[in-house]
Parts: sequence; structure tokens; C-alpha cells
Amino acid sequence: MTGGECLLRTLVASGIDVCFMNPGTSEMHFVSALDRVPEMRGVLGLFEGVCSGAADGYYRLARKPAATLLHLGPGLANGLSNFHNARKARSQIVSLVGEHSTQHLRFDAPLSADIDAFSRTVSDYIARSDDAFSIGQRAAEVIAAARQYPGRIATFIIPADHSWSESGPVGRAPAAPKPSVPKAISIAPENTGFILGGQTLMGKGLGLAARLAAGGYRVFADRNAARVESGRGRFQPPRIVYFPGPAQAQLAGLKNLVLVEAKAPVSFFGYPGEASYLAPADCQVQTMAAIDEDGLGALEEFVERMGLPASCYAEPEAAELPLTDVALSLDSVGLVIAALLPEGAIVSDEMVSSGPPILAALTRAKRFDYLPVTGGSIGQGMPVGVGAAIACPDRKVVVLEGDGSGMYTPQSLWTMAREGLDVLTVIFVNRRYRILDIEMKRTGAAGFGAKSNEMVDITRPDLDFVQLAGSMGVRASRACDLAQFIAHFGTAMREKGPFLIELQL
Amino acid sequence: MTGGECLLRTLVASGIDVCFMNPGTSEMHFVSALDRVPEMRGVLGLFEGVCSGAADGYYRLARKPAATLLHLGPGLANGLSNFHNARKARSQIVSLVGEHSTQHLRFDAPLSADIDAFSRTVSDYIARSDDAFSIGQRAAEVIAAARQYPGRIATFIIPADHSWSESGPVGRAPAAPKPSVPKAISIAPENTGFILGGQTLMGKGLGLAARLAAGGYRVFADRNAARVESGRGRFQPPRIVYFPGPAQAQLAGLKNLVLVEAKAPVSFFGYPGEASYLAPADCQVQTMAAIDEDGLGALEEFVERMGLPASCYAEPEAAELPLTDVALSLDSVGLVIAALLPEGAIVSDEMVSSGPPILAALTRAKRFDYLPVTGGSIGQGMPVGVGAAIACPDRKVVVLEGDGSGMYTPQSLWTMAREGLDVLTVIFVNRRYRILDIEMKRTGAAGFGAKSNEMVDITRPDLDFVQLAGSMGVRASRACDLAQFIAHFGTAMREKGPFLIELQL
Repeated sequence: MTGGECLLRTLVASGIDVCFMNPGTSEMHFVSALDRVPEMRGVLGLFEGVCSGAADGYYRLARKPAATLLHLGPGLANGLSNFHNARKARSQIVSLVGEHSTQHLRFDAPLSADIDAFSRTVSDYIARSDDAFSIGQRAAEVIAAARQYPGRIATFIIPADHSWSESGPVGRAPAAPKPSVPKAISIAPENTGFILGGQTLMGKGLGLAARLAAGGYRVFADRNAARVESGRGRFQPPRIVYFPGPAQAQLAGLKNLVLVEAKAPVSFFGYPGEASYLAPADCQVQTMAAIDEDGLGALEEFVERMGLPASCYAEPEAAELPLTDVALSLDSVGLVIAALLPEGAIVSDEMVSSGPPILAALTRAKRFDYLPVTGGSIGQGMPVGVGAAIACPDRKVVVLEGDGSGMYTPQSLWTMAREGLDVLTVIFVNRRYRILDIEMKRTGAAGFGAKSNEMVDITRPDLDFVQLAGSMGVRASRACDLAQFIAHFGTAMREKGPFLIELQL
Repeated sequence: MTGGECLLRTLVASGIDVCFMNPGTSEMHFVSALDRVPEMRGVLGLFEGVCSGAADGYYRLARKPAATLLHLGPGLANGLSNFHNARKARSQIVSLVGEHSTQHLRFDAPLSADIDAFSRTVSDYIARSDDAFSIGQRAAEVIAAARQYPGRIATFIIPADHSWSESGPVGRAPAAPKPSVPKAISIAPENTGFILGGQTLMGKGLGLAARLAAGGYRVFADRNAARVESGRGRFQPPRIVYFPGPAQAQLAGLKNLVLVEAKAPVSFFGYPGEASYLAPADCQVQTMAAIDEDGLGALEEFVERMGLPASCYAEPEAAELPLTDVALSLDSVGLVIAALLPEGAIVSDEMVSSGPPILAALTRAKRFDYLPVTGGSIGQGMPVGVGAAIACPDRKVVVLEGDGSGMYTPQSLWTMAREGLDVLTVIFVNRRYRILDIEMKRTGAAGFGAKSNEMVDITRPDLDFVQLAGSMGVRASRACDLAQFIAHFGTAMREKGPFLIELQL
């Protein structure tokens, strides 16, 4: 058995059976072993950022790691932006990176680069294979490192000769350890807010959150949590909003802030004369559970011990489909999506400036999983949708994407077509890096003149996402009014398979 | 004057008047200063790898640096792959990276990341702005660092508040220093070969190289030199070939190897049982000029001192256009390109497996500049074409691109359309990562079975580059036989502006 095959079998023995890859020469023995290890599914991406983003989306839904396989330092480089997002999502990923063969390493060949240096930018654990014999054991250690709660990107760098040489035994990573339960705290509900993150925004956690609210505590969701189970029939705590002023208003009056698998809230960017820290200056911050502790267990213990009442919250009304002659706006589009989104859908959000009205409407949708921006690096939306669809083949995935942000990893569409993924991508076309209009003013810049405007205006030429999707085998249509959007979105929800709607705002 | 404006004016005062950018919030004050500094041309890329690759291509032709402006660590991450290639090309680039404002840095905001760590993977010089007052002076130091011969990627990290605060004086970088002249060497022509790189593959260098050959020395070109002036009417030394066996055959019998702005040749990858080092074991290697020394001066001194004869070499016959009923093959396509390529064209090559027959034919073309792969990271071809076209607006640029490699930075097409660049992109469509078929066998892997084959086969769905180009505003056509290719290529050579040909092999 080659080292490449041993590595593949170690992944499978440890419960990892999906690998998102864009391989090259150094990884050929890993690739060829796919023929002998039927349990492993290889998913090809035409660009590395698709692979790293898909692994992130996969973990957020499957709650177990996928592997990625990228080619040397420069191949890894193309995956880093979405690894950054995955790291901020605290997703578990086993990042495999091929390296030149050992005898080749001392030469300055064109593709030679410091893979460790590339890895360090996003990985908290980096290992290099020592030799072909121990590859299984080392891989098992890497997998175990990825599974440290809540999750890490663990990188394994494998010289080509370790893949092509005879290996030792297949490894097997131990089951993921349970997070430790933190010390209990007590706090009264008066002027006390909770910021919930991690596991507490899913399933049972939301039931406990609702009891917090019923007990008089104010409850907020971490804005950049990896996954928030949302929609009617669930308690939907407000997320901390994007801009510092409104976020500070949200938190005004709090004397105590309790963090559960979350950090104290800070704004996305810093602005002249504005504070980055969002909680009131006189607010005491306590950590109920740190990022790497069992927030769900801690929250349950607290809610039971305090004897908080059963949940009781105002349920938003179900969204009703607007009439087809209503004007197209973000509000009316939001209502269409909210009304037609099927139960159990998954929504990957990278709408950027178009987001707030759509998300407000989505509180009125049936239950769905919401996957927000985590690390803020653009190009996450579609790849995360790819990974989510592979994790949950029976659920509809909807990617809500800006036209600016949609151009960072458009190669995702090809993987959607190849794998026949049940993903609808909606592109919100405003022909601008619209968010920068707002940010420009907030940073105190003079506003755009003719020349600077060219750097945020993405007309000339207009992007045609229908052709773009067609170029990669994804069916697509254009919606220029609300009736068209209702028709196209409805069709996409009824039918299976990849589809794209270019929505002209 | 804001720090952003001061930075822009320092670039202009130092002779840098093009900036390839994909900006975000942290860079808004630099962007807004474009309105007040008319000498600076901002070129927008929809993906960061377009910007870094374009800066590389720009330098290779203009022989002066461009700037890039990218957004925080994760934005820089998307540019790293082509920065890797630019570093191997030894291109001069001033890489500007916006950072969170100083007061925001201590918080773990979503986009917070270790920008220095990202930069270190490709930059030999990294500076952080100290404050708004000194931004001009610091920027001038960064520019000077980029211009160290032969060239460096010098990174300047600028916190947003340094851009929005009041600055000190505009800086001005000193003129680029001349490379030092190495000590003269003497060597007889018997069994002596030269490997030429850097400046010696351009202009006067090739004339001197021809005299070397006339004097009985064997002369080779560095395979991964940044730019080789090529075509009829010039001495065209053979490049070291890709695979180690044939490369060793090329160098067989040499007892002495002299390096001029080049390194001793090594293979691209290492293979089981094959040497990576390509020169014969008993061959003495001498350095006439190191990478950072004046190879042109050293070569001239040598040629004159040795009294080498005037150049005299066999000129290949001019390529003749094949008849339209000839079968379409890489050979016939190569002849078409060689026959129709106009004098002074620029060819950016990322054909990968389709390359050798085309390049053989191109020795019979009129004079052109050849821009090869330098760092081997895929996704270089089109961005380098963008930068070359901006450096040389009066010359035709032809990008020869694979269908696999064409999917890493396809966003280049949009910048070609926006800027009206005179670039023809030819996509060689073989619907496969074909090079991996060859590499698979060379690494001793068993060959592709049904499952592993899926990782190198890029059909299902077939990519449609005509639609892809159309989606970004670039006119395109498909050539399925030689007559069509002759017609489309001829039209593209006669007309100005961006165009794409999908060539079905």
C-alpha cells in the first residue's frame, strides 16, 4: 500500500469520507488511490477557494470534517481566503497539501515555496509527514487536532515521495473529545444580556435561549456565528447589527453581558471618532462558556438552576407571497423568498449591502439553517453552498449572493453542475460594490469623484450572470420584475438541481 | 492632505503611475485620492489574483513597477499565487495592503488576520506605516526596496487611520540602483555551455548570446525567465526542456556550465528514481553573474575580451499559413499563430500540455516578446496579459491559455473589456488537466481508474468559454477546425480590442 492510499484509508477509518480537491503532480498517488478506496468521495473544484469554502460549508452542516487536497504552497494560497472564513467559523477541516518530493526540496524549483508559512496564516496546527511508514499515524494526529472543540483547520504537508512509497499501518483518529463544562455562574435578569454563539444557536440551544428571554434576560446572537437555525417555530434572537452606532443602541442600558461560546462584540471596521467596542463602557462582561467550552451544557445548567419559565415569544407571521404587480424591491424580494423557501432549506448569505431587508423577511420563513459571513472575506457564499449541499443532499440550498461578491469564486457553479447539487444561487445585481458607498462616507472620505467611482462601479461592461452560469453548465434566468422573480424562484424551489437567478435590482 | 493622498503622490513622484486594485473599506481614502491625483491610473480587478498577475506582466514589459492595492490579509491572500509567480519572475511590485485602523487592531474583528504572515510568503521586504505623518517617507523606502535589482515584491501595510489622517510631506524614492558588475571570468568554448537569464534574454543580450554561439559555446535560455525576446531576426537559444530526461540529454557532454543571471537547472518536479539536478555530475558550474548582478555587462565584457566573432546562426524560415483544409492539430495551429502574429506582439504563455508544438512553431514568427510561466502557479496567463497590455497599449497581446488553467483567474476578461485592452486570449480546449496524465505516469502511479479520472477530467459539464467571455463583455468565437481558427485568429490580429477564441482540439 502506498503512502497516498494509507492516508486515504486513515481518513476513511476516522470518519472522513469527502475530499474537496484541486490536485497537481505531487498529489497523484493520493488521487490514484481513490480507485481503491470506494468509501471516499472526491469532489473536484476548478479553483482552490471553492474547495476550502466547500469544506467550511460541509462542516457547518455535517458537523464532521471534510478534507481538502491542494497543490503545494501556491495552490494552498488560492484556498487561504476561504480558510480564513472557515477559521473564524471554527470549522473543522483537514487540509492536505502536497509538497515536492524530499530529494527535490533542496532545489529552488519554480513551485518551491514555504508551505508552512502559507499554512500558518490560517492553521493552528501544522504537521509535516516524516516518512511514508508513519503517514497513517501522523494523519490520525492531524485529524484529532482538527477535531479539538470547537474546531480547527489542521494542515498536513505531504512530500510526494511519502505518497508514492510503501507505507506502514493505516491510522485511526480517536473520537472527538467533548468540550469541558465551565464553572457555573449566577446572574439576575435585570439589565443583563446574553450573546450566544456556537452550539447555542442550534436545536436545543435555541429552546434554552427562549427560556432566557422568557425569564427577562435580553438575548442576542453572535453576528458571525457559523450557523444559526432560523425561521418560524424557533426562537430567533436578534443578531448584533453591522454598524457600530446601531449596534451600540442595541446594547444600550446593559449593565451585564454574558458570553456563551462568543466574544464581546466589536464592529466589523473601525471608523474615525467611533468606538470599535460595542457594549456600554460601564457594562460588566462575564464569560459563561469560552469559545472552546461546552456552552450548551452551561446554558442548560443555568436555565434549569434558575428555574426559568417555558419559552414564550412573539412568533412572526408567516410570510405571504406578494402580488405579482408589486414593485420589485429588496422588501418584496425578501417576502418572496420567505414565502417560498421550503422547510429545512439552507441559506448561505453573501448579499453584503442587499442583506438587511431580506434577512428581516426571512424571520417569517419556515425553518431553515442560516449560514452567515464569518470571516468577512468575500467569495464565501457559493463555495459554502457547495459544501452544504454535499453534506445535506436532501435539502434545498439557496445561496444569496451579491454581484460584486459573486465574482470571487464563480467556479463554484461548475462544481454545482458536475455534482448535480440542489443549489439555487440568487445574484442581487446592483452593479456596484455598494457597501463601499456607505463605508466611504463612514470613514470620512470626500465621496466618490469620477475617477474614484470607477473603482467601485462594476458596469462597463455589465456582468451577465446568465451567461456566466451557462458557461459552467448551470441553468439560469434573469428576473427584471417581481413577477419574473416569483416565477423563477418558485420553479427553482419545486425542481431539483443547480440553478441561478440574476435578479436585477 | 490625507495620508492616502500623500501615499498616492509619493508613488507618482517616484514614477509609479499604475495601480491594480481591488479595494475595500480600509482603502477608501487611497481610492478617493485618485480624484485629486490625475497622474495615477487605477485599474480595477474583480479578483485579487488579476491584480497581482497584472502587476507582474506590467513590470515584465514596462521594466518599472506598478502598485497593487488589496484589502487586508484575506484580500492579499487571493493575490498570493500570482505574487509567487511574480517573485519567481523577479518582478518589481509595490504591494499596498490596507489594515484595520489602529484602534480597531486589538479586537478580533472578522477580517482581522496576520497580514505580515500572509505577506512573508511572497515578499522579501515588508514595512508597516508608523503614522500618517511619515507615510510618504516610508512609502519611498518601500518603493526603493522593490527596485533592488533585479526586483522584489515590497509590501507596505497601511492602517486605515494613517490614510484618513493628516499626513507629512510627499516622499520620493531614489532612482533604482544599478546592479553591481561581477568579477570577470575566462573559459574556453570546448564542452562549455551558458545558461542565460534576466536581461541577457532581451535586446543587446541576445546579440551577445549569438556571438557566444558563434564562438563555439553552447547557449541555453533559462526555462523560467520572465521575458524572452523571440522570433525571427533574433538569436533564439533553446530553453531547457520541462522533463528531466530530455533536459539531461540537452546538457549531456558539458564539462562546464556558466550561469548568467540564472541558476543551475533543476527539473520542475521530482520523480521516483530520477535526478532533479539536470547538469551532468562531472560538469563544473561557474557563475558569471548572480541573479542580482549585472549579467549584461558581464556578458559584454566577456564577449569583447574573448574577441568572439560576429553572430552567425541558422535563421528559421518564416512560417507560412497552412491551407484551410489541413487538419487541426497543435502543429497546424502553431503555424497559423506564427504566420499571423504581428511584429512586436507580446505572447503570454500558459498552455501547459499544449505548449511544445506551438512554441516550436513560434520560432518562425516575426519578432515578439515571450512571457513564460515563471513560478508554475496556474492562473498567471491572462492576468499577465492584462498587465502587458497596459504597459504597451500599442502592441498586440496574445494569451495562449489552457482550458484547465483558464479557470483560475477568468475575471481577467472583465478587466480586458473594461480597459479596452488589445488582448486576444486563445483557449486550448482539451477538456482535461492533460498534464496530469503525463505526470501521473511519471510518478509511477497506476494510471487513472474511473474514480480518479474524475479528478482530472473537466467535462461534465463542458466549459463554454464563449459564454464565459460574453458574461464579462469580451467578444468571443469558437474554432472547431483549422479554417475557422485561421479566420478568427486573422480577424483578431487585424482588429483592436479584447477577443477570445475557444479552440476545440
